[in-house]
Parts: sequence; C-alpha cells; structure tokens
Amino acid sequence: MLPFIRSDLAKFSAYKPHPGSNTAEPVATQFDRLDTNESPYDLPIELKKKLAANYERIIETNRYPDGGHQNLKRAIAGYVNESVSLPPNTFSENNISVGNGSDELIRSILIATCLGEGSILVANPTFSMYGITAQTLGIPVIQVGRNQENFEIDLQAAQTAIEQNQNPPVRVVFVVHPNSPTANPLTETEINWLRKIPENILVVIDEAYFEFCQHSLVSELQNHSNWIVLRTFSKAFRLASMRVGYCVANPNLIAILEKVRLPYNLPSFSIAAALIAMENRHTLLETIPQTISERINFIETFSKNPELKIWQSSANFVFLKLQQDLLNPEQKGFVTLTQRLKDNGTLVRQISGGLRITIGTPEENIRTIERLKTVLNSLYPQVTA
Amino acid sequence: MLPFIRSDLAKFSAYKPHPGSNTAEPVATQFDRLDTNESPYDLPIELKKKLAANYERIIETNRYPDGGHQNLKRAIAGYVNESVSLPPNTFSENNISVGNGSDELIRSILIATCLGEGSILVANPTFSMYGITAQTLGIPVIQVGRNQENFEIDLQAAQTAIEQNQNPPVRVVFVVHPNSPTANPLTETEINWLRKIPENILVVIDEAYFEFCQHSLVSELQNHSNWIVLRTFSKAFRLASMRVGYCVANPNLIAILEKVRLPYNLPSFSIAAALIAMENRHTLLETIPQTISERINFIETFSKNPELKIWQSSANFVFLKLQQDLLNPEQKGFVTLTQRLKDNGTLVRQISGGLRITIGTPEENIRTIERLKTVLNSLYPQVTA
Repeated sequence: MLPFIRSDLAKFSAYKPHPGSNTAEPVATQFDRLDTNESPYDLPIELKKKLAANYERIIETNRYPDGGHQNLKRAIAGYVNESVSLPPNTFSENNISVGNGSDELIRSILIATCLGEGSILVANPTFSMYGITAQTLGIPVIQVGRNQENFEIDLQAAQTAIEQNQNPPVRVVFVVHPNSPTANPLTETEINWLRKIPENILVVIDEAYFEFCQHSLVSELQNHSNWIVLRTFSKAFRLASMRVGYCVANPNLIAILEKVRLPYNLPSFSIAAALIAMENRHTLLETIPQTISERINFIETFSKNPELKIWQSSANFVFLKLQQDLLNPEQKGFVTLTQRLKDNGTLVRQISGGLRITIGTPEENIRTIERLKTVLNSLYPQVTA
Repeated sequence: MLPFIRSDLAKFSAYKPHPGSNTAEPVATQFDRLDTNESPYDLPIELKKKLAANYERIIETNRYPDGGHQNLKRAIAGYVNESVSLPPNTFSENNISVGNGSDELIRSILIATCLGEGSILVANPTFSMYGITAQTLGIPVIQVGRNQENFEIDLQAAQTAIEQNQNPPVRVVFVVHPNSPTANPLTETEINWLRKIPENILVVIDEAYFEFCQHSLVSELQNHSNWIVLRTFSKAFRLASMRVGYCVANPNLIAILEKVRLPYNLPSFSIAAALIAMENRHTLLETIPQTISERINFIETFSKNPELKIWQSSANFVFLKLQQDLLNPEQKGFVTLTQRLKDNGTLVRQISGGLRITIGTPEENIRTIERLKTVLNSLYPQVTA
C-alpha cells in the first residue's frame, strides 16, 4: 500500500503486548494476572521509597542517561560470577551488555549476525520473539519441532537444518533454558549438541528463568567464543516495568553488540532500579523458594487429574494441556478453558495448544487451583464427578 | 574475527554516548554542560514529587509496562494539534507512535523501508544518528552537502542523487527542522523541494527542536502520505533521562512502525513522565522565551568578534566556527577551543569543523560567554586586544 515500505512486512503480524500497570487499568487489576510470567511481588516498599528518593534527589530528568552503563555492568558481572559460584573477577564489565529488555539484545544479535547473510534456527514451541524480531528484519526463520512428550528439541531435524540450509546458512541458534512455554531445562544431550555447534554459528542461550532453575551455562562461555547467555531483570528481580535485560559473552562479541545498540537505550530510572536490584539481590531472591514450592504443589494437585496433562517445570510457570486436545487437536478445548478461567478471575496464557500459568502468590495460586477445578468440573462433569 | 558477525560491522564505529547524571559522576557536574542540547532545567520539584509518588503508589515494578501506549498517544495527539493550531481532533492516537527516544523510531523507519532494498539520503552536516543507525543495518547512506554560508541543502546534488542512485534506490530522505548542528530551519525553497519528492520515497522531518523554532510541517502531513514528523521529549520537555520520542504520520505508516517496534519499548516510569509532561506542558514550555532571548544575546555578543563566525539559530543551541578554520580547515583551531573551554569549565560539542554550544541557564551562559572571550583573548591576543 505504501510504496516505500518493504513488501514482506505487510503480511507480518506483531507480538501483541498487554496493558500494563502504569495506566492503572481498572480491568487488569481485578484479575489474578498469571499470564506473563512476572514475579507476583513488587519491590519491597523500602526499596520503592529509596528509588523514588533517588529520582527526586539525584536523577536530573533533563539530562541524558549514562550511555556507557559501566557501574551497572560491573554490578551485573559480580552477580553473574556469584550465580554460578565462579571467582569474583571471572567475568567483568567487558563481558556484559545491557538492553531495553532482552528484546533489544535479541534484535541487536540478529542485526549483528544475520542481516542479509544468515537465517536463525528455533525449536518450537519456544519464546516467540526470536522469530517475530527476525521477521521484522527480513531474516529467515528455520523451525524444527520438539518431542511432544518431554519437549526435547528434535536434534536430528536441527542438525539436518543446519547442514542443509545454505542459502542463507544458519547463523544463530536460539534456545531457552528452561524453555518457555514448556518449562523444561536443556538436557545433557541437548547441551552436548550445543557444544558441538561449529564456531561460525552463534548459540544464544536465553536464561530468562535461571533463578527458578539454578542451572546455568554461563561457566561454559569461557570455552565457547560462539556462545552468548541472555538474562533479564523482568522475572526473578521483579523489574518488568523497567525493561532491563543483559547478556554475557566474550568481550569481542560484546564490543560488537555495543556498537549496534542505541546509544542511550536505558532510561536513568531503569539503570538506577537495576543497580538497586543488584545491591539487594539476596533480599529479592528470598521469594524464589516459595515460588518453587508453590509450583510443586500446583503440579501435584493436577498431575492425577484425568482431564489434564501437566508437565514438570524448572521455571516460574507451568504448562498443561487438555487430554482431549492431545487426542484431537482440532477440538481446541484450551481456548474455552482460558476464557472460563478469565470469567472466573484468572488470566492465563493460551499458547501452543495449551495453557501457560504463571506461579503467583499463594493466595493467587489457591484461587486459581480452585477455579481450574471448578471449570474442569463444569466442562467434564461425567468424568471428574 | 568472529565468523558469525557481518563483515561490514567490523569497520564501523558507534555513536559515542557520554556519562549521565544517574551515576552522579562528580566530574560531569563540575561543568556547565552545554554539549548535548538538553534543557538546562530539571522538572519543577512538585512534578518530580508527583512522579515519585506515582511510582511509589501506582506503578507495579514487577509488571510489564503498557505496551499499547493509548493514553500517551492521545495526550501527544492533543499537543500536536495544539502546537500547530489545528482543531483538537485533527490528529488522533492513530497518527502517533512512541519510541525509546527518537533513536528507536529512526531505527524502526530504516527497518521498515530500506533493509536490503533501499538507501537513505542525508545532507551533511546533520544529526549523525541517521547515518550511524543505517550503517548498523547495512543500509547505504548517500551524502550531499550544504551551502557553507547558510547551510541550505545542496538541492541540485540531492535531486541528482535521488535520480541517479538506483541500486539500491533512495527510499528515505532525512532532514532536521531546524537542523543540528547548524541551527537553521528549512527554507521555503527546501520545503518546496520536499513537497515534490515522489510518493515512493519517505520524507522524515525531524522536529526535535520544534519548540524553540515554532515552525512545524505537521499540518502538511495531511497532504503527504510519504511524510513523517519526528519529535522528542528530550529537549523542550526536559525528559532526556526518560528516553521518549514520538512520530506523527498517516495511520497506515504508523501501523507498520507499530509492527516493527519492540512490544514493551517504554518503561512504565517513562510513560508516566511523558504523560505528566503533556499535562503540564504550558508550565514546562514557560522557559522557552528565556532560552530564545539568551540565544539572541549569545549570538549578538559574538557576531562582531573578528575571530569567530557565528550563525543565526532557530534552536536551543548556536553553531560557530573560527575564522582561521574557515580560511584553512587544516588548522583545526576548534579542537583547541573546545579543550580550553572545558579547562575553563564549559563542555561544548566539537562538531563539523566548529563548536555547537547549547543555550543554558542565564548563569551558565554568562560564564560561558566570559570563558569564550577569555580563551579567544589568550589564543589571539594581537587581534582581540
């Protein structure tokens, strides 16, 4: 329609964001919001007050932010080392780049590697932004599947895709550890496959949910110049509103990403918030064991339910499908289930033929478990009675 | 070096950001910071307190921001109409997209139009981010010059460039109104040339400094489906730390840019700040007449100085060159001048063979005028004595 727009963009549909809390939407806050894998907890009020005072007294609203991020990068490097029990100076600020959410880092990685030259490989179902962002850049997305029982990547298909797609060749492989929406961590077999990926292909390991899993591949970055680990402040660190993600990689790769990023990509308030989160990380991470025990309880509650199949999880969410949808995917019972849960007060994510439900506060989880039982009873009275 | 990185990125150097106020750098705040065209004024303390309270009481740090921006877009549309005396509903939220600074919008425009298909045209000297961002995306940048007396675009060269570059063709023309670093607004001749650019080329008119110039081309968007106007909250609205820019265009073009942008590109606090700036716009814009009269005074003070050539300005900064550099560009006296001003306490931008000096507070301007006089006297004692 507009002759100056790339023709391939017309057919493309964007990621659909949802309304957030800054608009104080009366609708959103009526619900238990278990649809976007956020932490259910705001920062402790002392930290909010500290941040607010920091804004009032230190941040000059009229001045551009720190475009170099040195303090924040140093703090992140310290946490990264600690998180995998490495000596304090193993990774430094030269191994870190920060983005306006991991989204911006994903885009920078795609720009730096694939534009006009390469394609990416993803194993579906997985986080949709890799494919969506690649499409906006005109980068081909090669998709392979996963085992439908345990969601392991179809490594044979992935290997074949890498070997056979030469026009353009695969330049980046994206994996999430643990995966979203299926909540499974990478297996040793999958990790071994990643270790063997040749050096001319970048391996992106997205550890957005690391804090709920406690297994990281960061230590192996020292042996793999073609690996990069993404992490975020949006989940365990409770800063989704602030948009701060980071990556860890060798300094040469970091230097390239720094070239590609927008010079003032993080607002001053977001930088200040991320610094405060790093300084108070032990406090903020204290809720993780509760999330994990709530997750175990949620899965146990429904694991014997004949209407559902629910998977184990290493993240702050669970993935489940209706048995009837597994037998006959045409039925799409998960659509009704999502809507009925919403009618009853819980927002969940309808995705990949199932439901992804974030672990909330104990109260939210109790309500959601009851609502899910009620909805299942009303939909399948003859079986679950 | 890294085999998965695009080869053309290696030779490319990035925009160099400067340290900001959030890190409370003791070095930066010793200086009169007249190097980045920021407003010299923070928000009034009542508004800072209101924003801080808004964060404490309303914003949930743990929740993703509003990814749709409807409230903010409506507020911006209202201001856009008011700013050019159009009826209140002329432009609506469907004509607006907001970005993580104008930088993100520039990147989105380049992605949507040129990737693999087109080149851009800029007239140097101008804002460097168009060219830098295009280079990160592998998009060719065609550069034409300007008249060295009045900095009008070399329209003949520009027309020839559009007609002759077909591989790839020019898809976007970027102009700044008024231009940075030279502070001149588009002339009627230049605007007439823009009006004749064919519909298959997008015309980007960057009105970052509109509030200091009060001449806008927004009204003409209704007649030109291939025009888009960029504006920012970073200058007159004093929100440089928040990273909020916006654009105005026809809804079809806006829809494409919304597809390309990252879904949660603005943090909640930045959205809240931009909304407060819109609600209090008359208060915030009250300092503009002072900036303009200070600018007039600055230019008058140096217009008769035999060592300098200083140009008229329609923005919140002035551009000047040393006469000796004009006679012999090899001398690069402006480098020494910049350093000596810094030694004396004023940061200015050394750019395009001259100095770009932001208009600060009256106190900053008085100090800077004195420092500039002192430095010129010490560098050229025989002439200015």
